[in-house]
Amino acid sequence: MTILGLVSLPRFKAAVLGATGVVGQVFMALLQNHPFFKVKRITASPGKEGLEYRKALRAWIPPVELSPEYGRLTISSFEDVLEDDDIKIVFSAVPRQVAEDMEKKLAQRGKTVVSNAGALRMEADVPLINPEVNISHLGLLERQKRERGWSGAIVKNPNCTTAVFTLALKPIMDRYGVEQVNLVTLQSLTGAGLRGYYVLEAMNNVIPFIKNEEEKVQRESAKILGTLENGEVKPKSIDIWVTTTRVPVVVGHTEVAHIKLRDNPGSLNEVRRTLEEWRGETGDVDTPTLPRQPLLVYEDPFRPQPLLDSYIEKGMTVAVGRLDLLRERVLRMVIVGNNLVRGAAGAAVSIAEYMHEKGLI
Amino acid sequence: MTILGLVSLPRFKAAVLGATGVVGQVFMALLQNHPFFKVKRITASPGKEGLEYRKALRAWIPPVELSPEYGRLTISSFEDVLEDDDIKIVFSAVPRQVAEDMEKKLAQRGKTVVSNAGALRMEADVPLINPEVNISHLGLLERQKRERGWSGAIVKNPNCTTAVFTLALKPIMDRYGVEQVNLVTLQSLTGAGLRGYYVLEAMNNVIPFIKNEEEKVQRESAKILGTLENGEVKPKSIDIWVTTTRVPVVVGHTEVAHIKLRDNPGSLNEVRRTLEEWRGETGDVDTPTLPRQPLLVYEDPFRPQPLLDSYIEKGMTVAVGRLDLLRERVLRMVIVGNNLVRGAAGAAVSIAEYMHEKGLI
Amino acid sequence: MTILGLVSLPRFKAAVLGATGVVGQVFMALLQNHPFFKVKRITASPGKEGLEYRKALRAWIPPVELSPEYGRLTISSFEDVLEDDDIKIVFSAVPRQVAEDMEKKLAQRGKTVVSNAGALRMEADVPLINPEVNISHLGLLERQKRERGWSGAIVKNPNCTTAVFTLALKPIMDRYGVEQVNLVTLQSLTGAGLRGYYVLEAMNNVIPFIKNEEEKVQRESAKILGTLENGEVKPKSIDIWVTTTRVPVVVGHTEVAHIKLRDNPGSLNEVRRTLEEWRGETGDVDTPTLPRQPLLVYEDPFRPQPLLDSYIEKGMTVAVGRLDLLRERVLRMVIVGNNLVRGAAGAAVSIAEYMHEKGLI
Amino acid sequence: MTILGLVSLPRFKAAVLGATGVVGQVFMALLQNHPFFKVKRITASPGKEGLEYRKALRAWIPPVELSPEYGRLTISSFEDVLEDDDIKIVFSAVPRQVAEDMEKKLAQRGKTVVSNAGALRMEADVPLINPEVNISHLGLLERQKRERGWSGAIVKNPNCTTAVFTLALKPIMDRYGVEQVNLVTLQSLTGAGLRGYYVLEAMNNVIPFIKNEEEKVQRESAKILGTLENGEVKPKSIDIWVTTTRVPVVVGHTEVAHIKLRDNPGSLNEVRRTLEEWRGETGDVDTPTLPRQPLLVYEDPFRPQPLLDSYIEKGMTVAVGRLDLLRERVLRMVIVGNNLVRGAAGAAVSIAEYMHEKGLI
Repeated sequence: MTILGLVSLPRFKAAVLGATGVVGQVFMALLQNHPFFKVKRITASPGKEGLEYRKALRAWIPPVELSPEYGRLTISSFEDVLEDDDIKIVFSAVPRQVAEDMEKKLAQRGKTVVSNAGALRMEADVPLINPEVNISHLGLLERQKRERGWSGAIVKNPNCTTAVFTLALKPIMDRYGVEQVNLVTLQSLTGAGLRGYYVLEAMNNVIPFIKNEEEKVQRESAKILGTLENGEVKPKSIDIWVTTTRVPVVVGHTEVAHIKLRDNPGSLNEVRRTLEEWRGETGDVDTPTLPRQPLLVYEDPFRPQPLLDSYIEKGMTVAVGRLDLLRERVLRMVIVGNNLVRGAAGAAVSIAEYMHEKGLI
Repeated sequence: MTILGLVSLPRFKAAVLGATGVVGQVFMALLQNHPFFKVKRITASPGKEGLEYRKALRAWIPPVELSPEYGRLTISSFEDVLEDDDIKIVFSAVPRQVAEDMEKKLAQRGKTVVSNAGALRMEADVPLINPEVNISHLGLLERQKRERGWSGAIVKNPNCTTAVFTLALKPIMDRYGVEQVNLVTLQSLTGAGLRGYYVLEAMNNVIPFIKNEEEKVQRESAKILGTLENGEVKPKSIDIWVTTTRVPVVVGHTEVAHIKLRDNPGSLNEVRRTLEEWRGETGDVDTPTLPRQPLLVYEDPFRPQPLLDSYIEKGMTVAVGRLDLLRERVLRMVIVGNNLVRGAAGAAVSIAEYMHEKGLI
Repeated sequence: MTILGLVSLPRFKAAVLGATGVVGQVFMALLQNHPFFKVKRITASPGKEGLEYRKALRAWIPPVELSPEYGRLTISSFEDVLEDDDIKIVFSAVPRQVAEDMEKKLAQRGKTVVSNAGALRMEADVPLINPEVNISHLGLLERQKRERGWSGAIVKNPNCTTAVFTLALKPIMDRYGVEQVNLVTLQSLTGAGLRGYYVLEAMNNVIPFIKNEEEKVQRESAKILGTLENGEVKPKSIDIWVTTTRVPVVVGHTEVAHIKLRDNPGSLNEVRRTLEEWRGETGDVDTPTLPRQPLLVYEDPFRPQPLLDSYIEKGMTVAVGRLDLLRERVLRMVIVGNNLVRGAAGAAVSIAEYMHEKGLI
Repeated sequence: MTILGLVSLPRFKAAVLGATGVVGQVFMALLQNHPFFKVKRITASPGKEGLEYRKALRAWIPPVELSPEYGRLTISSFEDVLEDDDIKIVFSAVPRQVAEDMEKKLAQRGKTVVSNAGALRMEADVPLINPEVNISHLGLLERQKRERGWSGAIVKNPNCTTAVFTLALKPIMDRYGVEQVNLVTLQSLTGAGLRGYYVLEAMNNVIPFIKNEEEKVQRESAKILGTLENGEVKPKSIDIWVTTTRVPVVVGHTEVAHIKLRDNPGSLNEVRRTLEEWRGETGDVDTPTLPRQPLLVYEDPFRPQPLLDSYIEKGMTVAVGRLDLLRERVLRMVIVGNNLVRGAAGAAVSIAEYMHEKGLI
């Protein structure tokens, strides 16, 4: 992004699907005053068409004010978005069950869809991207366009837990090799949406099960950490034993990992530097949402905490702490990441920004 | 306990040290209308001597009403307890740093001390007991009395996390052998006492560190699961990789265990039965506080939950769920136990009841 | 209740309608081991017939264990309750919209219905009763039976907020006269049922509106505090200015009242004694659920608190504090009462117990 | 503030006393990238001198990122601030007991002190200012300088509850006259500082008493709403009956007011417009922190809510709802305001900005 760019280029028109939901709201917040994209249309659940956005919201979750401009957008139908050829890019935060059909139609119509919806993530020709980890998987788009005959495209960001986890795991994997991971997550309530839990079931409690979550972490991690060769992502075979739970925290997933390494680190300091200095595959590209430092490491054993560490660099930086060698070649990390930003809308916006910079939209 | 016993035996006079703290309160609750023991004296932090118990309390945590009789007890000094020869048994919930000196004096004076305080737990001649797991370790008392020259005795219950964990692990260990455990805990706030955390640091948050807790779990588990031979507890060598955290839950520790077994279970049903049918070393003894069924297993994946499962059989039963074989010979269990009852006062009272039944007081 | 009574009388068979809801659960808890009543049948929302009670529960709210006997009851249809002539008394905790029809059928069929449901509370021939305040309004039943031609009867307990408020107001009104009340309530979440609020809307928040609640408080208070003359309740004309809000508390309504009196009290001590010594219209009757002391007064300005004061005498005693004369003849009281017990099931069970003792069932 | 001003004027050097506390943090957040003021020195509790600000924080409460520049400031001693003649303005958030002495010394030394500390608020020559309500009371400074012989000055912002209350009351008072107010507050936990409450006492609870708060509301409101004549503030005599409570909300005070008016409003719509169109005494001045619209009115009865309405216009706008005429000439309002911004640091910064614009610093 350059000053020159800001001046000379008109902003791409964008749409946000599912803009009243919790992830949709974070899309709207990140796209306020955005130098590349300008939201022109939004959708919500059926029946809300024509309402003003700010009046259709029951709550506004992001920690920034909703801009008057976006607040006054009126809610469109999906068809209006589909048929608006002015719209080049669509950010999707719709429920899994309606996503597949909508997103395919949009791609066919020539739009670039960057989507947080669970559907299609494991399709062989759909890039599933955690930017710093595997932005190179965008290479799949060539095959996608060819095989599907789309003028547009569909790109996915990962499940929230997986996005946080793979970001912290990648530099460790690259440097030391990873043989096995024990992962226990303490996930926040916004991961289940605005109406995920009733007060009387979730407060003062731990819920020890999140449907399909453990499978997603294993499956998506293998794809994200895999290598793209000849138009094919070869999944990384990592042995992950995982239990996912829900705790009474509003934003920020905490993940405790006990990682069996191939090589013993020289020291914890070396591990710390490996994490903090890592920039990943997006290293040379500077965009508004990609963080300058993807991973921050605490030496204070009381950190990271979701209450304090969920909004570092707008929520894109993942915080790591409690680094310890529990045994030889067994590394412990506690990882905290913002499930709505790094784990959802922020990852998607970063992907779109990267595509914009590389001329892929 | 028999009707006859109730009628013919006078109740032993007891004291509770640290009765206004959160564990002290649970001692008081469990000892209300108790058929074996009657609290005659209580102590609190210095400066409160002479106050009525109910007026010295800032909060009353147990889920039962404080009886008027105990509510009107006045707070004694430690010296008054020490010199009151009418008192045969002392339940201790004082802070670690003052416990050692007080408890040794009481034992010397002929009193049986059953203590939740951290001090002395790892002394070679002090039984550290989770009743169903290793009540046989009371055998150490003979050596204790001989070597220390005490007419009384000191017995310890374990750290809260360890008590919950070892109860669920013991039947698995006995039946299948345990090679290694990955343990991640989500501990409740009462584990840190009435003034452990400020609202603004602990609510809506996870705190990823509890000082000394991980060491305690490893050390105490080895002793409790060890075997007593020739007046010596030979610690069980179990490889436990552990991370302990604090979550915004008032009562009830949740512990996620991934357990590497020696032998593969025939089925999950077999594991379930192994847990539910286990009665442990106290099997033949019936006392007011020992639970009829120490371990309850849920098939509903959304259970156990600390909010719903912390008071089964007064808080002495530990609930287990999410049983799964993650890999061959790798068992997952989510364990929920009451940190104040099973993990503190309830274990201690059960030990005392057992000693009473066996004529050891 | 006498020992003799316990021995010689068989217990009345009872039913609880809506037994899985939050008020239904408290009915079940209060009716465990009850000397007068024994629950034989329970109902729940349609589709749950045939399920075991303990398995139909998503959560168990009362602070006592569910007895195995009640836990194993199977859920009946409403028709089964209606046609079971063995059942003499029915406790109702069904939603307002279905209550009227069901309860009328039951009364016609000869059963005594004591109901927490909002329907019919303001009917001229239906007693609306907060036991100590106006148990004499049971006198309406004669008219009810005569005019409706029922062999059974319908009696109502008040809305939760009203029950707590009128209990504390009655002795003040009788002694000093009340000209006007400013009432602001801070109501607990269970007042809205198990699924009243989502976490993300209610935690860390105050919701300044509860639908219809302010009207109910005014209307029901006037009826409860009114006088029965010639088969007619003449409502008490009290000028109540009221705002009701919801706060993130699980059990226990807090109500702040600024009361303009007719006569100035001699002293705050006199007010305190007036409240504490008051026994009301049930004064001479001793039943299992009616509290020995309906009103408890704190001098400590930090009390009452819903967390600490919701379960005094099983939740039937209302706690009062912050007594102050803000101006001449202007009394301030902060009132805390258990919305599920005093404000719902406990009031209903007490009414039934009283009717049992007086031979009215 | 003009572009010209930004370019030509150097920013005034400022200090923040008590910068690590909860109000101190909000001062720092509001003064980041501030066009008039630049924080050069900060202080904290004794013993922290020399620490970097970001490392001295246990928590960072404001909903914006701490700038790297301020994060790297080192903590100064009070003496360093006092003797640094480069510093023209000092924002004070120190505890009441040390404030008086420190602030007097600073004023004597020629610095302008704008202070949130409770001390000196009721001194006859100290302006107590809620900007839109009574910025004209700055006129007291002339007398202050003359009588005290100071080259600097001390100005105070009100207690948090009073600031929120008087902002909403002023336009009502001016238009309709106010005879009496019943005020019940539901105050947030940050009002008591970072370590005000323990989890186990404040969560899931209402605390019905806040020490000295009710007196402050009455006393400070009278001064703020009073009129300045001949160097004297004549307090407004308003009859306020008030009860203040604490609820488990992190930020945002809710205040329920039943207001007896002198004149009956024409309609609720008229009241709404009166509130929304009011700009108060600062009407013509535009500064970075003063809100464009001080009062926002909701028609939705479920608003305002502290969770949703505490950060309107950075937290300076107070939200009002549930407007109703309970009786003739009796107006109900529910008021929600940010206790840390409108009720503390934001009011103080606005005062300083106004003084800057008027050449009073």
